[in-house]
Amino acid sequence: MAEQEARRSGISPRGEGYARWYGQVVRAAGVAHESGVRGCAVLEPWGQALWENVQRELDARLKATGHRNVYLPLLIPRSVLARERSPGEGLAGACAVVTHHGLARGVGGHLIPDPAARLADPLVVRPTSETLAAAVFARWVRSYRDLPVLVNQWANVVRWERRTHLLLRSVELLWQEGHTAHETEAEAREEARRMLDLYAAFAEDVLALPVLRGRKSHRERFPGAVETYAIEALMADGRALQAGTSHFLGQGFSQASTIAFQARDGTRQIAWTTSWGVSTRLLGAVILAHGDDDGLRLPPQLAPTQVVILPILRGDDAGDRVFAHAGALAAEIAALRFGERPIAVEIDRRGARDPGRIWPWVRRGVPVRIEVGAREVLADSASLSRRDRSPRDRVPLSRGELMASLPRILDEIQRDLHARALAFREDHTRVLDDRAELDAFFAKPSPGGLALSPWCGRAACEDALHRALAVTIRCAPVGAQPGARWAGREGEPGRCIACGAPSAGRVILARAH
Amino acid sequence: MAEQEARRSGISPRGEGYARWYGQVVRAAGVAHESGVRGCAVLEPWGQALWENVQRELDARLKATGHRNVYLPLLIPRSVLARERSPGEGLAGACAVVTHHGLARGVGGHLIPDPAARLADPLVVRPTSETLAAAVFARWVRSYRDLPVLVNQWANVVRWERRTHLLLRSVELLWQEGHTAHETEAEAREEARRMLDLYAAFAEDVLALPVLRGRKSHRERFPGAVETYAIEALMADGRALQAGTSHFLGQGFSQASTIAFQARDGTRQIAWTTSWGVSTRLLGAVILAHGDDDGLRLPPQLAPTQVVILPILRGDDAGDRVFAHAGALAAEIAALRFGERPIAVEIDRRGARDPGRIWPWVRRGVPVRIEVGAREVLADSASLSRRDRSPRDRVPLSRGELMASLPRILDEIQRDLHARALAFREDHTRVLDDRAELDAFFAKPSPGGLALSPWCGRAACEDALHRALAVTIRCAPVGAQPGARWAGREGEPGRCIACGAPSAGRVILARAH
Repeated sequence: MAEQEARRSGISPRGEGYARWYGQVVRAAGVAHESGVRGCAVLEPWGQALWENVQRELDARLKATGHRNVYLPLLIPRSVLARERSPGEGLAGACAVVTHHGLARGVGGHLIPDPAARLADPLVVRPTSETLAAAVFARWVRSYRDLPVLVNQWANVVRWERRTHLLLRSVELLWQEGHTAHETEAEAREEARRMLDLYAAFAEDVLALPVLRGRKSHRERFPGAVETYAIEALMADGRALQAGTSHFLGQGFSQASTIAFQARDGTRQIAWTTSWGVSTRLLGAVILAHGDDDGLRLPPQLAPTQVVILPILRGDDAGDRVFAHAGALAAEIAALRFGERPIAVEIDRRGARDPGRIWPWVRRGVPVRIEVGAREVLADSASLSRRDRSPRDRVPLSRGELMASLPRILDEIQRDLHARALAFREDHTRVLDDRAELDAFFAKPSPGGLALSPWCGRAACEDALHRALAVTIRCAPVGAQPGARWAGREGEPGRCIACGAPSAGRVILARAH
Repeated sequence: MAEQEARRSGISPRGEGYARWYGQVVRAAGVAHESGVRGCAVLEPWGQALWENVQRELDARLKATGHRNVYLPLLIPRSVLARERSPGEGLAGACAVVTHHGLARGVGGHLIPDPAARLADPLVVRPTSETLAAAVFARWVRSYRDLPVLVNQWANVVRWERRTHLLLRSVELLWQEGHTAHETEAEAREEARRMLDLYAAFAEDVLALPVLRGRKSHRERFPGAVETYAIEALMADGRALQAGTSHFLGQGFSQASTIAFQARDGTRQIAWTTSWGVSTRLLGAVILAHGDDDGLRLPPQLAPTQVVILPILRGDDAGDRVFAHAGALAAEIAALRFGERPIAVEIDRRGARDPGRIWPWVRRGVPVRIEVGAREVLADSASLSRRDRSPRDRVPLSRGELMASLPRILDEIQRDLHARALAFREDHTRVLDDRAELDAFFAKPSPGGLALSPWCGRAACEDALHRALAVTIRCAPVGAQPGARWAGREGEPGRCIACGAPSAGRVILARAH
């Protein structure tokens, strides 16, 4: 079978190993590939289109909550990093350092850093922009009337990660980073929580990704943060993925850059700041959470193309009428709406005689495929396939039925992907208060899933669990946990699963990406 | 007069020097400011909003012409730059070189490039991405069926410019860079011209910026280009500004990265490539072309806020009815359209009792201001001011008149700014075939304007003109030149204005930014 062969080519089944499957899907779907530089990826057109949809949806939500975009420079003076006492230093050890402003021909004609172009003060490629944002805020803020300052930027950052993994752990990262300054500690803490909730809603609504919300342990906190919140998702390989973080930064960055203001009572005060970000890692999360052995499965809210029309020609069919029918259907579909926008429909006119032509679209994860041939022209109909069903399921629909049902079908696929991911997460989550059960749950080779277990709060126990089981504390659950069967039990007192000392509540343990 | 004072504060008149005026406008309008690193600017919210509007409009035009977005990495291996024979090398001498992947504490506790984190192969922060694009294309292209490849990216690049000028000449630059590969030389040449025309239309339609289209001399060509086209605009200070470039690259980059394909006749061929880009320099162009002594004047097509409503409270006016009236007007205006989008309207509720409150909006260049106070509430009316008229001109309009006229007024302002800039350019353009007249035209201190003069084509004459008059050959006009009174005369044979040798046509000479 040509279809069977085409299907198999390029992607090895998940059962033969998730790492291999993941790498093949990312490439076979035209999402991304590694460039020549370790940890630096090329986003191909389909991957970039996915990221632009993330940007469009998230940017609208950020602007709707009062945030305005800015752009902060790529290069940071070493002295600005050094200005921080503790903040920032955690990243200084693993960032790209610019020491020269030009190359020259050396011995043998090779290009070398030009000795005559050495910088007196080396620059750092930003690993993140808290220090620069604080310097800008100090310029803007004079009075409590200038607060809060709520800004965001879409940018690239560079962090010298030891291990890299396409989209999941990169040296160069595309992300958004929000930075805010507030009059009071309470307001800043509220902002950090508000952004956590915004990320959670975005992940659930748009990416169909069920997430837990929680607070990071001291060990997992962002350097310089007083509190780090994160959304955590369970991937189909049984590993957890941190999908977004939000930090309450206290006054550390404010003090270092002197974001001082005249308060309502006339006194001079130092502002309170937050920062928060999500990155192209979200694309990796979508692939790992929703993909199957045929490739990507995209939630319609994220899909650059929601419906693809594939004209099919057989025998000596000239194709004019088939293409005309496809064009008429496309125009009618583009006039329909899914959510707040017109349905994104595309006709693929290439290879109309190739029986394997559905497969590139299957691999890319387009939610709905519509095939039209001579038979469909005669019946004024179409043959519909859903990416969340078997590729062989084709449902014949009259034109009227198609138009009436498309928005509903897209909505069903969106819900279906979310429901499957949620069911998977809940099926792979245990409330475990017994150490032997925890050891069994995380016994290799299976990565297990999520365990909700009591922890005394001591770093020593966290380290011991990590050494013994290669698990980390993903978070202490905070706030609403939609869909979690254990919800409410996180606050029950118990005995630490590592040391047996009294614990005030439970935390989420997992192996992580 | 409070208004007069507020107006004067922050911006010195153009008559006292354009450089000072420009710097003050950029900052007073909240567009941008220099960060601590030379040539690296912070785009403030208003500046970033302007750039996002450039991106939205231009991105739509690029997608409509079949280009798809990608993302190519920031860091390029030195070896990739070295791979090129001539291409790229022109930029290697002035780019940021990353030699270490971390900082460490040195003697005295200072952060220094970590000697233990030295890169075996230094990396370069991309000054542009032709080499990377070619490497990616080589991966994608196998057959003539894979061509053309038409991609674009929105990205930051770093070039170690000797002189920098906020937005006009930067070390870090935000831009879009298009990269394409084609089956034939003719197609690639056509693409380079097509993008030149796309840029010209964008500048004229959206930025209200009259531009000339032309071909660069060999000296001004992009390193590695066979032909460089550019759009050139005349700024209000009498200097020319290159506002966008489009390059036909021949097969240089293709050969270096082996973008080889099986041709229609079965032979193995090397593709032909192009690249083209515009940057945040366009924001500098808009400021320098349209600004006046009060600050920015924004073409409505570019303005983030097209209409601002300013409630005015006097005496013991509680304001409820005034704010309600402002809200009702805003809702009605937001339902109107200008061009393809709803009118962007904003209410400024702060400082409703401050008589100087119009000035921040004047400085920012918002095209239309609407003031409403108790009187306007009673009359169900509004008081309208246009940024292209005196700030004191306020036209009372009934609600009905306001709604009926707003789209037309925005359109008038758009045309008016374009017409003024075009008239200025034409008033400062001369067809000069006589050297004495040329010398007089460019006699300092005035920067002169544009001269259309015969040139023999020799670099020696180009250099001589540059040495004598500090002018450069901006371009040899190519194609349509809307609004240029001299159009058609560029191809007339004559005698080189520098050496008197026969010349095949005329070129544009000017002092440039």
